[in-house]
Amino acid sequence: MLGKLVGFDDTIVAVATAPGLGAIAVIRLSGPQTYPIVNSLFPSKDLTKQPSHTLHFGNIVDNGSIIDEVVVSLYKGPKSYTGEDVIEISCHGSPYIQQRIMDACISAGARLAKAGEFTQRAFLNGKLDLTQAESVADLIASNSAASHQTAMQQMRGGFSKELHTLREQLITFSALIELELDFSQEDVEFADRTRLYTLVYDAAKTVQQLIDSFQMGNVIKNGVNTAIVGKPNAGKSTLLNTLLNENRAIVSDIAGTTRDTIEEVLNIDGILFRLIDTAGIRESADTIESIGVQKTMEKIREAGVVVYLFDANETSVEELQQQVDTFKSQQVNYLLVGNKIDITGEAALRAKFREFPHILFISAKNHEHISDLKNTLVKKVMSGDLNTENTIITNARHYAALKEVYKSLNDVRQGMDNGLPGDLLALDIRLCLHHLGEITGEVTNEDRLDYIFSKFCIGK
Amino acid sequence: MLGKLVGFDDTIVAVATAPGLGAIAVIRLSGPQTYPIVNSLFPSKDLTKQPSHTLHFGNIVDNGSIIDEVVVSLYKGPKSYTGEDVIEISCHGSPYIQQRIMDACISAGARLAKAGEFTQRAFLNGKLDLTQAESVADLIASNSAASHQTAMQQMRGGFSKELHTLREQLITFSALIELELDFSQEDVEFADRTRLYTLVYDAAKTVQQLIDSFQMGNVIKNGVNTAIVGKPNAGKSTLLNTLLNENRAIVSDIAGTTRDTIEEVLNIDGILFRLIDTAGIRESADTIESIGVQKTMEKIREAGVVVYLFDANETSVEELQQQVDTFKSQQVNYLLVGNKIDITGEAALRAKFREFPHILFISAKNHEHISDLKNTLVKKVMSGDLNTENTIITNARHYAALKEVYKSLNDVRQGMDNGLPGDLLALDIRLCLHHLGEITGEVTNEDRLDYIFSKFCIGK
Repeated sequence: MLGKLVGFDDTIVAVATAPGLGAIAVIRLSGPQTYPIVNSLFPSKDLTKQPSHTLHFGNIVDNGSIIDEVVVSLYKGPKSYTGEDVIEISCHGSPYIQQRIMDACISAGARLAKAGEFTQRAFLNGKLDLTQAESVADLIASNSAASHQTAMQQMRGGFSKELHTLREQLITFSALIELELDFSQEDVEFADRTRLYTLVYDAAKTVQQLIDSFQMGNVIKNGVNTAIVGKPNAGKSTLLNTLLNENRAIVSDIAGTTRDTIEEVLNIDGILFRLIDTAGIRESADTIESIGVQKTMEKIREAGVVVYLFDANETSVEELQQQVDTFKSQQVNYLLVGNKIDITGEAALRAKFREFPHILFISAKNHEHISDLKNTLVKKVMSGDLNTENTIITNARHYAALKEVYKSLNDVRQGMDNGLPGDLLALDIRLCLHHLGEITGEVTNEDRLDYIFSKFCIGK
Repeated sequence: MLGKLVGFDDTIVAVATAPGLGAIAVIRLSGPQTYPIVNSLFPSKDLTKQPSHTLHFGNIVDNGSIIDEVVVSLYKGPKSYTGEDVIEISCHGSPYIQQRIMDACISAGARLAKAGEFTQRAFLNGKLDLTQAESVADLIASNSAASHQTAMQQMRGGFSKELHTLREQLITFSALIELELDFSQEDVEFADRTRLYTLVYDAAKTVQQLIDSFQMGNVIKNGVNTAIVGKPNAGKSTLLNTLLNENRAIVSDIAGTTRDTIEEVLNIDGILFRLIDTAGIRESADTIESIGVQKTMEKIREAGVVVYLFDANETSVEELQQQVDTFKSQQVNYLLVGNKIDITGEAALRAKFREFPHILFISAKNHEHISDLKNTLVKKVMSGDLNTENTIITNARHYAALKEVYKSLNDVRQGMDNGLPGDLLALDIRLCLHHLGEITGEVTNEDRLDYIFSKFCIGK
C-alpha cells in the first residue's frame, strides 16, 4: 500500500490553524477537486495555470460578493503533505470569515475533513508510515523539550528505522528456516541453529528495550504527577514558589493559554512535573494536619512521585521513620527533603539523620541545593539517563503491539528449545512480522485507521 | 508620507495565527533582516536565492537541533503586506514549537512585534491609508454579515474614496478663495460666492451623512443589546428558543468558541442582537414578578431595544397602557409583541387592542409571524434600510474627527454669511483639511499611531 497514491475521489477542507481570533487563519483543501474548487472562488487569477509551490494574492468571491482578500499557497500532488493537490488559503483571522470561506468551499464541492484526515491521506498515499503519522499528533501536542524531541525523532523516522532493522532480522530468520524446509528431503542443514537462536535472542532484546522505554516515553509525553506534601510549616509554599519561579513550564508564557485552567507545571530539564492539586496545596499549605489523613493519601497514591518535605530542625528521627514506613507500606515513590538547613546548619542535621542517607537537605528560603532537588526529581522518574538518541516508545498502541511481538518471539525461542519443526517456527515468525506491520501500518484495516486518526485535531 | 518606504532598520516577528493548539501555526517576520534571520535557521536551502512568492519545505534548526519541519512563504518587499521583506513560517501548531521558533528568530536578531505593528508598517510604507489599516482590525473582529461587509468595504477604500472627494471639494474651494486673495488689489472676483456657498453646503451635507451613519455603524459593528421582558407565562422562553433555533449567530457554531462564555446572540439579516442576561431570563423566565422591579428596569435601560412580550389573551388594555406609560417615562425603545394568537385568534385580539396599532401579534409556539418580528427588530435599530453600498462610519476616532470637520465647515458657512474676508475663510478650510487628514493618516503623529495600532491583535 505504501508508495503509490490511493486516489481518493473527494476533496476535503478544514481550518488548519487554532480556533478563535487571530491575525490570519489558514484553510486547507486536499483532493482531486482542490484546484477547480478554489479556482471557482478566486477570480483574480487562473490558479490551474500557476506553478506548484507559489503564492498568489487575490479575492475569495462567493455569489458575487468579496469574502476576503487572501493569499493562496499552491501545492501540486504528489509534492504536497497529503500527496494530493493541496491549496492553503491564508485569510484574515475572523471566525466569521473562516466560516464563510469554509461554507463557500463546501458549496463548491469540498467536504468537511474529519479529525486527522489530512494525515490519514498522507499515510495512505505513502508519504508517511503509521508511526510517523502518529508522531505528527504527538508533535502538535508536545509541550516540553523532551516530548518535542521524541516526537520529532519519531516523525523523522527514528522508530521506523529500528522496526525496519528488526523486520530484516526476522525475515532473514524466516528465509533460512524456509530454505531448510524446501530442502528437508535432502537432509541439508542450511539454517545454523545457533545463528537462528542468536537472531531471535537479539530481536527479543531489542523489543524488550523498546517495551521498557514506554514508561519513560509516557513520562516524556504526559509528564509526571507530583505531590509536594508535609506537615504545616514544613515550607511547602516557599519551596513551591521557588521551583515555580525558576522553572514554570514555557507553555504558560504563551498568550492565550489560560493560566487558570492549567495546573501548575514545572518544566525541569524538559520533563513536565504536574503538581497535583496545587491550588489546594498553596491555599491550605499550612492546614494539612497529618499525612495520614485519608484524602491526602489518595492524592499521594495518584502521584508518580511524592516530595516529602519536613522541617529538619523540628522533626524527630522517630517521626520521620514512621512516615517512611507509611510510604513503604503504601508503595509510594517518595523523596525525603529536609528543609530549613539555614537554621541549624547542614552538617548537624546530616548527623542527626545519619540513618537516612538519601535525605536531600535544602533551604527553600535561601534557594540552597534546589538544583540538587531538581536533578534528583528527574532521576527519580527516568529509569535511566534521558538520552534522546535512543528510540523511546510513547504510543500505547505501539506498546501493545510490541508486547505481542515479544510474546511471539518467546514462542519461537521456546519452540526452538523444544525442537519444534521449522514450519511451525516459521508460523510464529510470521505472527511477529504481522504485529510489527501493525505498528508501521503495513498490516492494518480501515476501522483501526479511522480510530487512530480520530484522535488527531481537525485540519491535520 | 504615503507611497514610499520608510525604511525601518529592525525586523519584527510574531505568531500570526490564533493562540493555542492547531494543526499548523504561522510565524511572520517583516523587516530588512528577515531573509538573513530565517536563512540562518533554515539550512535546507539558500532562501536569498529563491524568487518572491514561492514556498519552500525544510527544517528550522537552532543550535544544531531540528525544531520542526516547516514550509516558508517568501515575499520580497515591496510586494508584501508591509511593503518590506516578509517571510511566513508555517510550522506544526504546538504552542511549544511556536515558542521555540519565536525564540530562535529573536536570538537571530528579530524583535517581538507590538500589537498591530505589521499593519502600522503597511500604513507607514504607504500600502494602506489609515482608514484602511483600521478596517483590517475591524475585519478580523467582524462576526456578522453586516460588520464584515462594512469592514471589507472600508478596507478596499470605500470610505477613503468618500473622503478623497470631500478633500477635492475643499481644496477647490480653498484654491478659488486664495486666487481671489492674490488678485484682491485688482478688484477681480474669481470666486463666485454662490458656487462657494454650494460647495461648502454640499461638503457639510456629506459629512453630516457620514456622522449620522455612525449610530448605524455602531450597531453593525457591535450589535444591539436586546432585552426580551414580560410577565411570567408570557412565553419568553418559547420565543427565545424559536428565535435562537432559527437565527443563532454563526460564530457560536465554530469549534473552539466557548459557548458558555458567549452571551446568546441572534443574527438577524446580518445584525447581531445581543440578548442581555439571557441565562437569567431563561432560567428565571417565569419568576420575573413585575416589570416594575428595580433590577429589571436597570437591564431595560441598558438595552438598545426592549421586546415587551405579553399574553394577548390574558392582558387587559389598561394593563398594557400602564406598561407603555412606564416605558415612555423611562424613554425606553420598546416593541410591543402580543403572544398566543393561537388561542383566541388574531382578528379578535387586534380588535381588543385597536388603540395600539403598533402591536405585533405572534404565536411563539406555532412560529407564526416570527419573520415580521425579526423585520421589525431590524427596522427598530437601523435608522434606515441597511444599504451596505453606502459608506458607514464604524470607528469612534473617525466619528470624532468628522464632527470637527463639520464644526469647521459650519464656521466657514457662518463666516460667509457674515461677509468674512477670504483669508480668514481659507484658515477655516485648512482646519477642515487638517481634520480630514487625521482620519486618513496624512496628518498624524507617532504617539497617536502607536495608540491606534495598539488596539490590534499581535501578529497583524
